[in-house]
Amino acid sequence: MKKLINKPEDVVKEELEGMALAFPELIKVHFEPNYIYRADAPVKGKVALISGGGSGHEPMHGGFVGMGMLDAACPGEVFTSPTPDQMLEAAKTVNSGAGILYIVKNYTGDVMNFEMAADMARAEGIQVANIIIDDDVAVKDSLYTAGRRGVGTTVLAEKICGAAAEKGYDLKQVAELCRKVNINGRSMGMALTSCTVPAAGKPTFDLAEDEMEIGIGIHGEPGRTRMKLKSADEITEMLALSIIEDEAYTRTVREWDLEREEWVDVEMTDPPFEAGDKVLAFVNSMGGTPLIELFIIYRKLYEICEKKGLTIVRNLIGPYITSLEMQGVSITLLKMDEEMVELWDAPVKTPSMRWGV
Amino acid sequence: MKKLINKPEDVVKEELEGMALAFPELIKVHFEPNYIYRADAPVKGKVALISGGGSGHEPMHGGFVGMGMLDAACPGEVFTSPTPDQMLEAAKTVNSGAGILYIVKNYTGDVMNFEMAADMARAEGIQVANIIIDDDVAVKDSLYTAGRRGVGTTVLAEKICGAAAEKGYDLKQVAELCRKVNINGRSMGMALTSCTVPAAGKPTFDLAEDEMEIGIGIHGEPGRTRMKLKSADEITEMLALSIIEDEAYTRTVREWDLEREEWVDVEMTDPPFEAGDKVLAFVNSMGGTPLIELFIIYRKLYEICEKKGLTIVRNLIGPYITSLEMQGVSITLLKMDEEMVELWDAPVKTPSMRWGV
Repeated sequence: MKKLINKPEDVVKEELEGMALAFPELIKVHFEPNYIYRADAPVKGKVALISGGGSGHEPMHGGFVGMGMLDAACPGEVFTSPTPDQMLEAAKTVNSGAGILYIVKNYTGDVMNFEMAADMARAEGIQVANIIIDDDVAVKDSLYTAGRRGVGTTVLAEKICGAAAEKGYDLKQVAELCRKVNINGRSMGMALTSCTVPAAGKPTFDLAEDEMEIGIGIHGEPGRTRMKLKSADEITEMLALSIIEDEAYTRTVREWDLEREEWVDVEMTDPPFEAGDKVLAFVNSMGGTPLIELFIIYRKLYEICEKKGLTIVRNLIGPYITSLEMQGVSITLLKMDEEMVELWDAPVKTPSMRWGV
Repeated sequence: MKKLINKPEDVVKEELEGMALAFPELIKVHFEPNYIYRADAPVKGKVALISGGGSGHEPMHGGFVGMGMLDAACPGEVFTSPTPDQMLEAAKTVNSGAGILYIVKNYTGDVMNFEMAADMARAEGIQVANIIIDDDVAVKDSLYTAGRRGVGTTVLAEKICGAAAEKGYDLKQVAELCRKVNINGRSMGMALTSCTVPAAGKPTFDLAEDEMEIGIGIHGEPGRTRMKLKSADEITEMLALSIIEDEAYTRTVREWDLEREEWVDVEMTDPPFEAGDKVLAFVNSMGGTPLIELFIIYRKLYEICEKKGLTIVRNLIGPYITSLEMQGVSITLLKMDEEMVELWDAPVKTPSMRWGV
């Protein structure tokens, strides 16, 4: 295993120590339980956004803590859900009284632990809503998932909802916006190589020198198909068309009803893309793929969107939701309305996303 | 060769097409000869900064074109110097009459071609100064170099001098500042893996599964030593101490004298670091190393700087000067004075470095 680490068991702790030293003006780090929070938390009168999940996807989520995005992030061990006590303590630290939105990627452990944390926080008098992100069109169910996995749309939801909270949206409004971002976002990824979880010490899976995996998950979960390596244009087409031609997707999601104060099953449907839509195009490195290749992908993605009548009004290109050093790429398309564009453009100041300030 | 590309010979062209589509409000791309330039060039009354070099180091330099940084960047083929006609045409496009500074990394081809381009531009009535960046302490001479190689300090010089030009410094002042940044910056890198140049189709060098190369160049040139893989803390210590304990380094550099209007040999010396210095600490990924590992490196670098009496007043952590998908890291320390800190903090708006606007 070739990594720039010390002991595998210290990776997350030392990473957090490094982050705390690097960005003292933006974030603070609490250890045991581990969470990263805004240096100026709690922010008076503002709904607080908290996300979290296994480590190994950096900069998500810790790199997105700060003005205009998250109030706190709860990192688990690599590819392992954080625990409810992390989420509860983070909520208590950043709660200003305006309530908390937990943004949860759809993996069984994350969903369960964030639900439990929400119940515990409510028992302490904190208002909490949970929104689940399930945007990966590759597979219906997966190794750690009932339903679609939560991937790239999470990054976009955190930016857009973070701006809304900053602007004064109340908890119900921020939760509704987050749901809107989720149903309008779709993603799919692929891998050229596996990654190696430090504690495992060997690659999660094997791919032959001439093979790739289409529809890979961010933990290396199996995708749709394994096939011979193709050109960047062909790969982009496979990912983009799977996203653009995905049909209306309906599922039932468990959400907390803020008015009735109980868990309810909500049926919701992702509307398909249509000619005339405005989209944000997000080309994401899985960690080990350099920028030079992402631009080649973006070039083809732009052409495909144009052919399909989709106008790219904003983009994001780089490593934002990664799988350690995995080589590969994921594409996310998010159907944007004016509200979302305005919130996307709003100032943000975090370790890994920063503009306008 | 596992890469997200189409034909190896189209990599740079398609990359540039992707960049042009991605950032039309910031940059324009001219093809044949290839150069990227500010969308609002020429900027009236402002000294124009131009850099360039082989592709494969993205985001350097094209990702640094925009307000507060470069006016143009000239990309060669992967790891191959751009040609004088690219540099000349870029100069003609961005020149506003206040003159041009060529920021040149110290590689034989780059130095020669930028000199030639400067002479050609002067023949057309454009004032040009050249400053060479030679900050890599690893080796004295190298595969493509007489003297030290130009690496991480280049990124910092482009940001700081870009801000100075924006602020109204004249050509002589910007050139002097660039020289000051260069002599106060020192870098060293290491690799866990090789990279593969697309046209070559196979790794530039081989490293056994338990080996690393200390002092690697950004084109995979040999460094100081090849050894068994060590821990992140030990690697950070090797790089950081090589930089911090580097003695005064004196060499003669060929520069254009703006007053005498002739090439002159200038002797200059890099002052060693001393306890009490304020520094910018730059932890750079070689392309394939993820952020999680960079923070572990930063944590140890911070501790070492503290022990040596150096105060880190600013930092930069991420992939900024890369070697395709190489796994590895480089560290740059730049001794900062108040002028440099102020210019570092000034607004910048480029594809890959953006804050304040």
